[in-house]
Amino acid sequence: MTYKLGIPDEEFIRGKVPMTKQEVRILTIVKARLDEDSVVVDVGAGTGSISVEMALQAPKGMVYAIEKKNAALDLINKNCVKFGVENVEIIAAEAPGGMERLPELDAAVIGGSGNYLEVILDIIDSKLKPGGRIVLNCITLQTLNTAMVYMKTHHAYSYEIIQVQVSRYSQIGRYDMAKAENPIFIVTCTKNEENIDEED
Amino acid sequence: MTYKLGIPDEEFIRGKVPMTKQEVRILTIVKARLDEDSVVVDVGAGTGSISVEMALQAPKGMVYAIEKKNAALDLINKNCVKFGVENVEIIAAEAPGGMERLPELDAAVIGGSGNYLEVILDIIDSKLKPGGRIVLNCITLQTLNTAMVYMKTHHAYSYEIIQVQVSRYSQIGRYDMAKAENPIFIVTCTKNEENIDEED
Amino acid sequence: MTYKLGIPDEEFIRGKVPMTKQEVRILTIVKARLDEDSVVVDVGAGTGSISVEMALQAPKGMVYAIEKKNAALDLINKNCVKFGVENVEIIAAEAPGGMERLPELDAAVIGGSGNYLEVILDIIDSKLKPGGRIVLNCITLQTLNTAMVYMKTHHAYSYEIIQVQVSRYSQIGRYDMAKAENPIFIVTCTKNEENIDEED
Amino acid sequence: MTYKLGIPDEEFIRGKVPMTKQEVRILTIVKARLDEDSVVVDVGAGTGSISVEMALQAPKGMVYAIEKKNAALDLINKNCVKFGVENVEIIAAEAPGGMERLPELDAAVIGGSGNYLEVILDIIDSKLKPGGRIVLNCITLQTLNTAMVYMKTHHAYSYEIIQVQVSRYSQIGRYDMAKAENPIFIVTCTKNEENIDEED
Repeated sequence: MTYKLGIPDEEFIRGKVPMTKQEVRILTIVKARLDEDSVVVDVGAGTGSISVEMALQAPKGMVYAIEKKNAALDLINKNCVKFGVENVEIIAAEAPGGMERLPELDAAVIGGSGNYLEVILDIIDSKLKPGGRIVLNCITLQTLNTAMVYMKTHHAYSYEIIQVQVSRYSQIGRYDMAKAENPIFIVTCTKNEENIDEED
Repeated sequence: MTYKLGIPDEEFIRGKVPMTKQEVRILTIVKARLDEDSVVVDVGAGTGSISVEMALQAPKGMVYAIEKKNAALDLINKNCVKFGVENVEIIAAEAPGGMERLPELDAAVIGGSGNYLEVILDIIDSKLKPGGRIVLNCITLQTLNTAMVYMKTHHAYSYEIIQVQVSRYSQIGRYDMAKAENPIFIVTCTKNEENIDEED
Repeated sequence: MTYKLGIPDEEFIRGKVPMTKQEVRILTIVKARLDEDSVVVDVGAGTGSISVEMALQAPKGMVYAIEKKNAALDLINKNCVKFGVENVEIIAAEAPGGMERLPELDAAVIGGSGNYLEVILDIIDSKLKPGGRIVLNCITLQTLNTAMVYMKTHHAYSYEIIQVQVSRYSQIGRYDMAKAENPIFIVTCTKNEENIDEED
Repeated sequence: MTYKLGIPDEEFIRGKVPMTKQEVRILTIVKARLDEDSVVVDVGAGTGSISVEMALQAPKGMVYAIEKKNAALDLINKNCVKFGVENVEIIAAEAPGGMERLPELDAAVIGGSGNYLEVILDIIDSKLKPGGRIVLNCITLQTLNTAMVYMKTHHAYSYEIIQVQVSRYSQIGRYDMAKAENPIFIVTCTKNEENIDEED
């Protein structure tokens, strides 16, 4: 069996670790614009659902999955095995810990950043190729605001902010009943191809 | 202490019975356009939160709260006592049961209708004054569709359909994190003032 | 004819000035928790739709409508006349201009604040009674963030942030088609009853 | 230059024909689960944005784009040329017109169906392989309801209904301001692999 982008949520092994839902995962990965040989980092990898799907999209590339929680690290590993993915390197650290050794990057996905988002963005910026992308999934207003302010003041980047709200209809007897998923802001940042002075 | 429209959810006694959330309750009651002496029915009253707030808006009127579940009936009663409301008459029945004895109505709110929505609408229609309103909160596509089809084929009514999605931000440490409430369709039906033949 | 809360949008005279939509107007006013004698300010009053509805809710009180644009000032005036409202005082100024002469306030609604939100909040804070409310309608992330940071650092206040998304279904031939209204953040800030030191 | 899934909206030539927005296009195509050799039909192809992206995902397959409006047919053609796509066959017809000659299908996308959705679904069903998928984008409650009822009564299918609401933040001066896109229901129907009697 082969896996395409859009693995259903229930196929991932997840325990009690929160997981990005299918539709947000799809949009996040598509907006990262991976090639088959892309080198990417997944900061705050959680269950590894995004890392696994990125690894399948970039079979000749490499995904670095950074995660601090032991329970989650175990899930990332199990999901890589389940989906036959061999190009995910798991880094057991709280970002920005463990990030200095990352190679040059084609893209970065940030799902969880704790209190260190600016430092994490600085490190990613130092490694991201021109034309590369940073895609953030923001569930708090603080993360959203930090990302937005960062991109407004780093002129090497253009950015897009969307908010996505998905409701899923459960089939209960003869009824189809709405169940909302939490809204999420997806911030997609593109590093300009040319050199541009970054500060005002 | 006096109560105005917009009682916070946590002030109602609710147990495990699902409750219409504050914002949807506010919009539902405002769209019913009550006067101080309005006579209204609340079909599928649940915890009684809508009945209580309508009773406070219509202190010289009467609210008939129809509910079939014993646990909910007890909550309606407790909430009426808590908020000092004496103009709610509780009807322990599964609608349309118990509805024939309703008097002429200024408005009707339908929060839960089981499988009998069309019959319930027929009875309400037979009792609703010209200019009166029926406001439905629909959480399933089936209820929404039945209400819409009913109003499209009963030309004495004009209707408005809106969908409302509220997300509430929880304050967790220094973060404000979105938590979605389920989307709801609010169908507001106005009975025309003049006589109009109801069937095509 | 009397007017209740929830005047339909199309009844206001509006020209090309943007207007808060009915559902957001209802929620904003209910969350301001007005009494019949409340004294309130409406900062960035636009067409005056919120001022008019607040004036109708507080017939023995007073609404101060601050607005800088000439076209909008004219609309506020026309809407007050149309709805027979005599307790709106229009202040032609760009807030915080014109705010120093405001009396003690029971509530404030901020629909538009330009670049001066913090100063505006400081002035309102200096005039707002304990237990009073400030309700902000935020359509930009910057306004939302400024309001949130202000309330996090002024401990005399507790606050609630919700985001409301309304879609309205147009009846086109036999179809009912969704048309989204822009999402809005409603920030409701309550000044504590007791004296609390405001700074950490 | 190569094209990946997720072409920005502004890269398509579109005139005044309504176009599915990028995020909905991505989710629709991913949920159709195309292979490189998939044979698919796009009913109500509009500008051709979905046809073009499906053709790029299935370079060894074939996309049949059915569209009745002349202005749209011209756009489909222009977009195929712009994106270098040679595996789209345009059928100038109002579906179900022109559908009988379709070959066996791996997937179908329905963006517009006029009044004939049931007949269109019957024809697609007669040509869809076991395991194939039908993905509908529904902007009206009628289309949603017809699709749902069809799938509830055709037991060869399981289905998923989601509603997606995207808001896009415009960068206006120093502000980021929300602009809602219309909500859309995406109904994804999967034909069971095994033979199952279709009627109760």
